[in-house]
Amino acid sequence: MANKRASLLFLSVARRVCLSSRHTVIPVTRRHVYASHSIFPHLPAYSCHFISTTSGQSSLSIRSHTCGELSSSHVGQEVTLCGWVQYLRQDLFVVLRDFSGLVQVFIPQDESHREMKDAFCGLMVESVIKVTGRVRHRPEGQKNSNMSTGEIEVYAESLEVLNTCRKLPFEIKDFVKKSEALRMQYRYLDLRSSQMQYNLRLRSRLVMKMREYLCNVHGFVDVETPTLFKRTPGGAKEFVVPSGEPGTFYSLPQSPQQFKQLLMVGGLDRYFQLARCYRDEGSKPDRQPEFTQVDIEMSFVDAAGIMALIEGLLQYSWPEDKGIINIPFPCLTYEEAMKDYGVDKPDTRFGMKLTDVSETFQHTQIEFIREAIVQPGGCVQAICVPDGAKHLKGKDMECLKQVARTQFNQEVDCMQVRAEGSIKSPLGRLIPDTTRLQLLLKTSANAGDLLVIAAGAQERVCPLLGKLRLQCAELLEGRGVPVRDPSVFHFLWVVDFPLFLPKEDEPEQLESAHHPFTAPMPEDAHLLYTQPHKARGQHYDLVLNGCEIGGGSIRIHNAAQQLYILENILKEDPSLLSHLLEALDSGAPPHGGIALGLDRLVSIIVGASSIRDVIAFPKSFRGHDLMSHAPSLVPEEELRPYHISVLWPSAKNGQDDKP
Amino acid sequence: MANKRASLLFLSVARRVCLSSRHTVIPVTRRHVYASHSIFPHLPAYSCHFISTTSGQSSLSIRSHTCGELSSSHVGQEVTLCGWVQYLRQDLFVVLRDFSGLVQVFIPQDESHREMKDAFCGLMVESVIKVTGRVRHRPEGQKNSNMSTGEIEVYAESLEVLNTCRKLPFEIKDFVKKSEALRMQYRYLDLRSSQMQYNLRLRSRLVMKMREYLCNVHGFVDVETPTLFKRTPGGAKEFVVPSGEPGTFYSLPQSPQQFKQLLMVGGLDRYFQLARCYRDEGSKPDRQPEFTQVDIEMSFVDAAGIMALIEGLLQYSWPEDKGIINIPFPCLTYEEAMKDYGVDKPDTRFGMKLTDVSETFQHTQIEFIREAIVQPGGCVQAICVPDGAKHLKGKDMECLKQVARTQFNQEVDCMQVRAEGSIKSPLGRLIPDTTRLQLLLKTSANAGDLLVIAAGAQERVCPLLGKLRLQCAELLEGRGVPVRDPSVFHFLWVVDFPLFLPKEDEPEQLESAHHPFTAPMPEDAHLLYTQPHKARGQHYDLVLNGCEIGGGSIRIHNAAQQLYILENILKEDPSLLSHLLEALDSGAPPHGGIALGLDRLVSIIVGASSIRDVIAFPKSFRGHDLMSHAPSLVPEEELRPYHISVLWPSAKNGQDDKP
Repeated sequence: MANKRASLLFLSVARRVCLSSRHTVIPVTRRHVYASHSIFPHLPAYSCHFISTTSGQSSLSIRSHTCGELSSSHVGQEVTLCGWVQYLRQDLFVVLRDFSGLVQVFIPQDESHREMKDAFCGLMVESVIKVTGRVRHRPEGQKNSNMSTGEIEVYAESLEVLNTCRKLPFEIKDFVKKSEALRMQYRYLDLRSSQMQYNLRLRSRLVMKMREYLCNVHGFVDVETPTLFKRTPGGAKEFVVPSGEPGTFYSLPQSPQQFKQLLMVGGLDRYFQLARCYRDEGSKPDRQPEFTQVDIEMSFVDAAGIMALIEGLLQYSWPEDKGIINIPFPCLTYEEAMKDYGVDKPDTRFGMKLTDVSETFQHTQIEFIREAIVQPGGCVQAICVPDGAKHLKGKDMECLKQVARTQFNQEVDCMQVRAEGSIKSPLGRLIPDTTRLQLLLKTSANAGDLLVIAAGAQERVCPLLGKLRLQCAELLEGRGVPVRDPSVFHFLWVVDFPLFLPKEDEPEQLESAHHPFTAPMPEDAHLLYTQPHKARGQHYDLVLNGCEIGGGSIRIHNAAQQLYILENILKEDPSLLSHLLEALDSGAPPHGGIALGLDRLVSIIVGASSIRDVIAFPKSFRGHDLMSHAPSLVPEEELRPYHISVLWPSAKNGQDDKP
Repeated sequence: MANKRASLLFLSVARRVCLSSRHTVIPVTRRHVYASHSIFPHLPAYSCHFISTTSGQSSLSIRSHTCGELSSSHVGQEVTLCGWVQYLRQDLFVVLRDFSGLVQVFIPQDESHREMKDAFCGLMVESVIKVTGRVRHRPEGQKNSNMSTGEIEVYAESLEVLNTCRKLPFEIKDFVKKSEALRMQYRYLDLRSSQMQYNLRLRSRLVMKMREYLCNVHGFVDVETPTLFKRTPGGAKEFVVPSGEPGTFYSLPQSPQQFKQLLMVGGLDRYFQLARCYRDEGSKPDRQPEFTQVDIEMSFVDAAGIMALIEGLLQYSWPEDKGIINIPFPCLTYEEAMKDYGVDKPDTRFGMKLTDVSETFQHTQIEFIREAIVQPGGCVQAICVPDGAKHLKGKDMECLKQVARTQFNQEVDCMQVRAEGSIKSPLGRLIPDTTRLQLLLKTSANAGDLLVIAAGAQERVCPLLGKLRLQCAELLEGRGVPVRDPSVFHFLWVVDFPLFLPKEDEPEQLESAHHPFTAPMPEDAHLLYTQPHKARGQHYDLVLNGCEIGGGSIRIHNAAQQLYILENILKEDPSLLSHLLEALDSGAPPHGGIALGLDRLVSIIVGASSIRDVIAFPKSFRGHDLMSHAPSLVPEEELRPYHISVLWPSAKNGQDDKP
């Protein structure tokens, strides 16, 4: 304590000496700002101004310690705490809270402290106070092992009320449930919860470690790129920003893709940025109009290099309290992922993989299965749900069938495996014993399991069973059967994606699976000119617990190849990307990169059900800020400098009556 | 080298073992992507895939070293370099460049290397190549002490051309001058210059050190705040962003001011962010529509605490090659700054302070001076320009008078002090000897100096002379007289600003000098209710070499005080800030903060004449991106989802013909 005071005194004196030699002194203490609320204005104001150390969480502050850091080791010390009144108990204790936790403050009961006691007892919860007092052991029997500071209490010696608090719309207690809308409207109160404090602080620490790894370990350069950019023609999800020149608009980019590649052409060598990105997706669930990605690009690297970088990045920055992650991460090809899990972002925390049982049903009497098998690409696929027959009810199976019908226009059969190995299913009597035994063997199904079977074209059946696999996991968990451990983190790379996919609305036309700048696999480059739909891209997706949290690629660095893809395969107007094509022709190095979705990554780490819980001020699912009421009406005259006017839906005219 | 290879092999093997146990292996080398350009496809592709270490600037890369790091200590080593062809000399040498510098590559001349020599000699400058070779001493007499790698050269053993380069619009040589417009249009080439590489890398390192200081030393939390926010009514400088709901708009905020205060109310305690901010200022010189500020807010702190934090921050993060900065910084009150320098952001790198010489002229015969003195607040002020009479020409003095007339509607007198102490000036003969001697004494003027004198109301004369003081410095520097050392950094705090200033267009009405959330000085709080124009704010500006690079304040944390200021002093509608007022009433802690203008700070550190030189992709002064041509025209049908249409200036109608 003596040292802390001494170093502070030195600081104050140093400033004053320096200043007085030349200029007027700025008053060092501003403590009087609190005087209007001060209950004990007779306390010496100056002497306790600067009681903090020169580093740490209480540096440069009017407190000496945080509430949560106090322990038996502080017994006997005088401390000054600042925080919020959490509880007042029996006029004997105040429980004080700051971001670090709670501590119990004992209110002296003797007559000489009468004035202070009255002040304590008059406090509303969530009032902000400053308490100076001495740390002491709690009496035996009053220790609270559920509280990190439960061994001690602070015997109050002085109190200053820094601010009062009105009656709040909800209490700041972890056990108090409040609606999402109320949380959003009073976000500044919601942020006081220990969960939100934990989430935002973990996010900040994670990001700091990532920066250390990228900058200090691997020599990356943190470069900011513009968010007022050029509109992508037809970029339906881009917000527009009218400029001061009639008819012209900036747009808010969905990612800094072009800029990061141009930085490589510019010789920056290794770029990263925590990049704010924008996407106008209306009211898609759990999307935000602005989000953050860890954006990375490197020159003179290959896919394996980027993947190793990201593995190292996550291992280095992983929060200590979340265990250790092992690297390298496993890796699946796109084809394997679709075959085994029916999805390109498999949740590998549990089994229930898809099994191709076409062979088993090769000679089946069941007509619709036979028909499905004989068509080109036709197959029969099964998933085995362990203990599914034991735990899932009839309505659960109905639910699975419903999903298959409504989302995939497809029938599925649910077969319950009985103790004696028989099968309970509408199709059961049509399946001969040999088929049944082969099926059980192939799917490793045991008594009590549930088999979900579907037949049809592989590109439809696999995604269907992939969906039902997740649905089964949810249904089982809903019945209390643990399937996915929420405390484990299963990372997975998915690679060898097709470079192009048929357009949904125009299947004879190809579109980029990732984006038009992804390079083909070197061994597939010749396919661009012959069978582009068969070319695979140097694209890698990072999946965590079944969520895609990152994606990247090695980029095309050859202008001619980029032009060919834009013009001949994607049928796009290359003049719109002329600056990028020119850049590739100006000595572009081989380069590649990746972007990680930070909001999603953090939400999985902290176990939040929504990315809103890891963003300080999120928008509602309709894109509204319920606290400040953004977006809001703007009067026409304030739009005039931007040369725009509002097209009110009712005020239709000749130009605007098209859909 | 052996160790490097070993560790890399381990990495590759580790991945493969792990994967092959379960899944297909992703091909570890992607080297074939370069094969289309490869001149020596017969070289073993796999063996040299991963020659890099696991950290450093060449980690995870296909190079082993950077060009600029090579020195005599590497002699004898085999290295692989990737970079751009800077020069080709006499078919004997290629000078290779990457971000780290230049290195000379020796082209073997013997017949066995004929194919490689031909390939080298066919290279266009700025082609991208990969060279493997052995480092050797340059022969005596060929060492180049102007080049950091001038002791050595790399004897090429293999060459791979990674990309070719077209004829560029300008050469990437430091001595090649190019127009600003060309630099902006081909920014990706401009970024290859050593100056831009230095600027962006220094900026990245500076920011990283700042983050370390804030997060790791003082426990700050990095929190991202929204950039899609609510429009401030009348916020003329805010960009609007139409939402999908008719007539409603987000705006891009000029700063996260409200959010940072709400974070304090939310108990975040210590917040910082490198915040992107937006301001639509049309074509003001050297402004950018988007810029970055180091945004900081703390609870339970006073002005001295924030100032000490910033001093520590700058000292900690200051680039090593720019010397050491001493803290604490000197401090001036607003009143002193105006009195001594005629400006609230004085450049203290040089003297020429303003001197009040009213007393000297108390009994003057010069009518206009006498008139000026007798009016309330009237004065005569002088600056003494050392050696000004010696160096400044007649047209320089005319220029000073011109500035005074056109910008301040005011006359000034320039008096040249002669060797014998006489004064050459139109007013000279009207000044008696006693006045003259007193004037020289008071202004410490010596023979050869120039006195610039103005008379009038103090609030006009001081800013005028403040302006002329800077003008004199520039004029002297233009004549080759050093006045301001460009390599020194003079930080200065300016404090005790008035809380309110008269509105320019409505002088009887007050507006905030800083912003409406700044708290009054505690000792001036009572003035709010009686003489608000006399109240000073707890506001501090940070000035560096005459530029304001930061500003902040202790905020109002009392809802009643905030409401009074908004309603009664500023005459604003408090309902527009109801969420903030409610938040202050919900247990807001005392808090304060600051924002530093990062672009300006970095530009001063690197000595750039424009902030464009420290931003990777800046806009032109008219807000255009000359490379991608943003902003751009957007077809009406793509605006329809946002319910807006363009008001073309020619298509006026009844609603829009107002100015």
